Amino acid sequence: MIVILEPHIHKDSEEYSRVIERLKALPNITLRVHQEQGTQQTLTEIYLVGDTHSLNKEEIATFQGVNRVVKVSHEYRILGRHAIGDNRASYFEYNGVIFSQDNLHIFAGLCAVDTPEHVEMMMKALQTNGQVCTRMGAYKPRTNPYSFQGHGKHCLNYVFELAGKYGIKVIAMEITHENHLAEIRQALEKTGHPTGVMLQIGTRNTQNFELLKNVGRQSEFPVLLKRGFGITLEESLNAAEYLASEGNRRIVFGLRGMKTNLGDPHRNLVDFAHVPVVKRLTHMPVCVDPSHSVGTRAQSPDGLMEIQHAAAQGVIAGANMMLVDFHPYPQKALVDGPQALLLQELPWFLEDMQIAREAYEKRAALIAKKIEQTSN
Amino acid sequence: MIVILEPHIHKDSEEYSRVIERLKALPNITLRVHQEQGTQQTLTEIYLVGDTHSLNKEEIATFQGVNRVVKVSHEYRILGRHAIGDNRASYFEYNGVIFSQDNLHIFAGLCAVDTPEHVEMMMKALQTNGQVCTRMGAYKPRTNPYSFQGHGKHCLNYVFELAGKYGIKVIAMEITHENHLAEIRQALEKTGHPTGVMLQIGTRNTQNFELLKNVGRQSEFPVLLKRGFGITLEESLNAAEYLASEGNRRIVFGLRGMKTNLGDPHRNLVDFAHVPVVKRLTHMPVCVDPSHSVGTRAQSPDGLMEIQHAAAQGVIAGANMMLVDFHPYPQKALVDGPQALLLQELPWFLEDMQIAREAYEKRAALIAKKIEQTSN
Amino acid sequence: MIVILEPHIHKDSEEYSRVIERLKALPNITLRVHQEQGTQQTLTEIYLVGDTHSLNKEEIATFQGVNRVVKVSHEYRILGRHAIGDNRASYFEYNGVIFSQDNLHIFAGLCAVDTPEHVEMMMKALQTNGQVCTRMGAYKPRTNPYSFQGHGKHCLNYVFELAGKYGIKVIAMEITHENHLAEIRQALEKTGHPTGVMLQIGTRNTQNFELLKNVGRQSEFPVLLKRGFGITLEESLNAAEYLASEGNRRIVFGLRGMKTNLGDPHRNLVDFAHVPVVKRLTHMPVCVDPSHSVGTRAQSPDGLMEIQHAAAQGVIAGANMMLVDFHPYPQKALVDGPQALLLQELPWFLEDMQIAREAYEKRAALIAKKIEQTSN
Amino acid sequence: MIVILEPHIHKDSEEYSRVIERLKALPNITLRVHQEQGTQQTLTEIYLVGDTHSLNKEEIATFQGVNRVVKVSHEYRILGRHAIGDNRASYFEYNGVIFSQDNLHIFAGLCAVDTPEHVEMMMKALQTNGQVCTRMGAYKPRTNPYSFQGHGKHCLNYVFELAGKYGIKVIAMEITHENHLAEIRQALEKTGHPTGVMLQIGTRNTQNFELLKNVGRQSEFPVLLKRGFGITLEESLNAAEYLASEGNRRIVFGLRGMKTNLGDPHRNLVDFAHVPVVKRLTHMPVCVDPSHSVGTRAQSPDGLMEIQHAAAQGVIAGANMMLVDFHPYPQKALVDGPQALLLQELPWFLEDMQIAREAYEKRAALIAKKIEQTSN
Repeated sequence: MIVILEPHIHKDSEEYSRVIERLKALPNITLRVHQEQGTQQTLTEIYLVGDTHSLNKEEIATFQGVNRVVKVSHEYRILGRHAIGDNRASYFEYNGVIFSQDNLHIFAGLCAVDTPEHVEMMMKALQTNGQVCTRMGAYKPRTNPYSFQGHGKHCLNYVFELAGKYGIKVIAMEITHENHLAEIRQALEKTGHPTGVMLQIGTRNTQNFELLKNVGRQSEFPVLLKRGFGITLEESLNAAEYLASEGNRRIVFGLRGMKTNLGDPHRNLVDFAHVPVVKRLTHMPVCVDPSHSVGTRAQSPDGLMEIQHAAAQGVIAGANMMLVDFHPYPQKALVDGPQALLLQELPWFLEDMQIAREAYEKRAALIAKKIEQTSN
Repeated sequence: MIVILEPHIHKDSEEYSRVIERLKALPNITLRVHQEQGTQQTLTEIYLVGDTHSLNKEEIATFQGVNRVVKVSHEYRILGRHAIGDNRASYFEYNGVIFSQDNLHIFAGLCAVDTPEHVEMMMKALQTNGQVCTRMGAYKPRTNPYSFQGHGKHCLNYVFELAGKYGIKVIAMEITHENHLAEIRQALEKTGHPTGVMLQIGTRNTQNFELLKNVGRQSEFPVLLKRGFGITLEESLNAAEYLASEGNRRIVFGLRGMKTNLGDPHRNLVDFAHVPVVKRLTHMPVCVDPSHSVGTRAQSPDGLMEIQHAAAQGVIAGANMMLVDFHPYPQKALVDGPQALLLQELPWFLEDMQIAREAYEKRAALIAKKIEQTSN
Repeated sequence: MIVILEPHIHKDSEEYSRVIERLKALPNITLRVHQEQGTQQTLTEIYLVGDTHSLNKEEIATFQGVNRVVKVSHEYRILGRHAIGDNRASYFEYNGVIFSQDNLHIFAGLCAVDTPEHVEMMMKALQTNGQVCTRMGAYKPRTNPYSFQGHGKHCLNYVFELAGKYGIKVIAMEITHENHLAEIRQALEKTGHPTGVMLQIGTRNTQNFELLKNVGRQSEFPVLLKRGFGITLEESLNAAEYLASEGNRRIVFGLRGMKTNLGDPHRNLVDFAHVPVVKRLTHMPVCVDPSHSVGTRAQSPDGLMEIQHAAAQGVIAGANMMLVDFHPYPQKALVDGPQALLLQELPWFLEDMQIAREAYEKRAALIAKKIEQTSN
Repeated sequence: MIVILEPHIHKDSEEYSRVIERLKALPNITLRVHQEQGTQQTLTEIYLVGDTHSLNKEEIATFQGVNRVVKVSHEYRILGRHAIGDNRASYFEYNGVIFSQDNLHIFAGLCAVDTPEHVEMMMKALQTNGQVCTRMGAYKPRTNPYSFQGHGKHCLNYVFELAGKYGIKVIAMEITHENHLAEIRQALEKTGHPTGVMLQIGTRNTQNFELLKNVGRQSEFPVLLKRGFGITLEESLNAAEYLASEGNRRIVFGLRGMKTNLGDPHRNLVDFAHVPVVKRLTHMPVCVDPSHSVGTRAQSPDGLMEIQHAAAQGVIAGANMMLVDFHPYPQKALVDGPQALLLQELPWFLEDMQIAREAYEKRAALIAKKIEQTSN
């Protein structure tokens, strides 16, 4: 059972203490508090764990300071939407950037960091185009053990410093071991926290439960969990729940295409029709990765690249975040060059996504109006 | 090799005779002419078959009346785009409706015809909303032999008459045997051709090559070929080429989701990222079927149904046709009721699609402008 | 409900008339009789259709001449095993050859008929090795419309005559249209029925329900239905039920690998672990096709080809029939040459399969003994 | 390039020093030695890394003490079979048990350790039936974070002690984090090394490259790497190469079925036709896991369980190891009870596998004889 408090109630208020005390008095029940402090309001959710069968939901709803009580269904206890009308806020704020099911951030950047020059060119282009988020790969899991595996910790300092220099607030960065978490923390400290990091867990580690537990136990960094490319959506959502069950709920869920030759000639079968599904089943913002799904710069006869079409498809269905590969000189990229967009294509790509986002917003406004009319 | 004539050249002109004569004079070559007569222009393509290796493409391009010569690559000889710059027109006109890679028609209608009353309610709603196309299933291939298999020929007369009554120009209708083609032809004759029919070949028959050959040999009706749900895109495009190789090139290619549990909780894994791929590889207009791909009326938290999101994804990537299931009383529908939209949702659905289509057009205009700027 | 008569009861006996009369007297019930006349015994099954809910199973079981009564479950009404202990005989006899869940026939032969010389070499090799069954492809469904499509009816006469000359009793032959059925019937008549034909329906037509209905309506030829390579087993078994629901129950169900790149480097993912599943769910004998599943002559370090390993896997799990491609000169074969075994490999292949079959029989004897011990 | 020494050459012999010296003298080349010390012979492979293009293979083959030189192809540098005729020995010995492509070990045991009583019952049954290997799960990766995750390190001591008590030499045990490796090492030390452990890496961690690297860096324990259930065979073999590239070559490769609903009603689509493929592409012994592939105790009409049929299919194609779940009281098992075989079924299961193994050996002898005849 989840008890949601009134949004004005802070952790150090008397009201807060009172309601906690009443809840603690319930027999055979332990509390677990999750608080999300936004700039405008506070979201406080209190999980009642234990012998919840004997609780009276209606009674608890009348406790002073309680806004709502939601019964938890079996699946995705923490992340799930548990009932029709479970409209708890779905957002978190990190380093000044709000991630929610209601907005969109584009993380254009380098699939793999190669040289400081390329990193700087990328960062500068982002700033010029008004962006505060990026993707930068330092640790690259590669199918073949003899392939380039990323510069790892050796590039972190300059990546973070350059990010700071160009006003980047959040870098999505894949990690494949808990040590990488420590290395990132250390580099951020050393460089004076010029930027923030969203830890990315890739598709090959979606069910690396030990990594999930480790990342879930810290709350400094939010997490982008990519869907497993060969497992069901349900299994991947359960993997996200691993993170949450350890304490970290600042999770974005990433779609990146499914591994099957039914997707040929694309690298994967683009699965962005699942954007609204993840939003229906859970409270997580949803990210799409058109670059790795499509895997080619092929262009349709209308002049638009297939990566762009996939990207627009994600956005018009309400995607909240996007990873997209750019590179100043794709032919020199050490990883996944062929699919990278060019720096000069960035402004135009962003404009294209803007059109798709506006279309989504128009569509959402239309349905909202229709629902309002119907309910009157 | 394909010789494309100037658009003003008609079959009965002297210019036409002259160029044909010259082509006929080429050694060891047979001609096969395909002409598409639109209201505004004529598309004449002449296939040179035989010993084409010895032909001089540049020389033939200088023949009077010849607009362009395209070398045929191995794959999809007739339907394929054979080179960068193979920008031959991609359209056909049927019963006053133009199908092309540049426009969009929505075929809302009944998955399966059940009663004349429901058919009439549907047709009327379409007219009210300015639609001239619909889908109506008379022959239903069902997995289980003991399930309802459609009313077959018994419903054709009233379906066609009601279509005519409400100004419907084209009905997409699945057939599963050549006999159905004869039955449809007969019913149209008997009722005085009040409407037109686009023959639909379903996903279970995509590689029913005998049916493809039979349908390919007639040119009265255009064909909507659905992609096979368990085969690669290449194999399905080859199936379309079967139709074309027999003479009928008025083909729309339909995406309807791929059969894999990686698509759960949707009925199929929506494959609409392939819309631009089909347009890149061939000249066929592309149809999407969000109803059968998604298979549920589930709603995302923004109030939009997942069927709608998938539909918008198809449209924003340039889809040219859409099949979508409606029903006056879904709970009474004999086939696939649970996914059908309601008649009162039709105006709003069309408005939603209009938003997506406008977004697509804006995107295409943006890239066209960019290409123009780059080439200057 | 299925009423199974005592095995000694013939259709023209008085006992038969008596029991039929009693069953006919049941209210609101229609009878449908299926009789399989073997050389040693007769299997008579009487389907009671209609208002079976009100019937008393135990009472009917006491009717004279009735051996057993089985309640029909929802799925696979005719072909299914409907209960634990539904041990009705699972066999049929065609042209002197018995097909059952208890024996094994190997159909070595040409994937596609090319020349009379090759057909004769094949037939002769079969006779030399004591075989009375073969596979011969006259109608070849090909992915690409421009590939060789088989010699069709033009080769039937000599194929049948050569079969007769070398004592072949049954030829498995794919058909893709009802016309082929007529052509085969005609050629057999013209040549004086020198052999028999088992109609094969290929994986691309597993859900070509019109073809299934046509083939199901005749009872002259038994049918080998191949599993659909991209659909579930349940859907393919339902396709077999289409045949049975039209009247023909002489069906062998064929496994031939599933279409997914998870099977690479084999052409398909070999699915022979489903041999015992089909036997558990239905009464059909099960065929395996190692040639098309594996699709290569690759050899493992022990010297055995992977086709052989797959074949042995089918047999040790109880397969009842096998299609396997041979060719005198694989490099000259018009279809699927690379996977064909050589004629000189035939005796050794058969010996290899004999080892696997003996292992299966030992395993079955072992478990039978164990079950007997346990029940004592 | 791999230089294989004569089998009689030991690391401390003069001959060894001499050949090493000569190889060290080659320009721009580093050596990496792998030695497998069996009871009967020594396998010494020396990898030449660096500028191998300029080496003369034929010349090196004449060095005294060199048995053979193999050129390394691009894929699977260490584990791969690099040429036709690359018949290097494929085996390793651990705790007195030889694992090779030429023999078979059955690891019957508990999927998950639950109580000391059950562990002891299992161990005792194994000893009674002459077995020296088992499987015992202490660390269980579970899809749902709220499911039982195994007793972990808390059960190690008693598991190892009981293994020692009943003469078990090798326990296959899954680990999901490098810490588990340390815990196992510690428990073995504490209990006085009463048994040995084969580290198992499960299907969810096949591409957990950090874990692979950690496990690859130690050489105390051999490794069983399970194939990834949603990736291609090639990708999984590359994962094995990760282990080898870090130094540990004592690897068994495990097949456990592929994740696709095309395998229904089995839990996975059994992929044991790949047994000979793995042996053809690499030197690794191949393990099959019929319990997790099939996932049910369903019985075919011949009385044999489908798990057994799958198991026999693996064995008749040359499998070298098998994991199979047993439990004294499956209904009390905490994980995967429904598929476990009963202790009283153990002798009969082993006898069944013996039949299949003998069939494999007969088949291999037959082909060996045939090859001999052909080459004469």
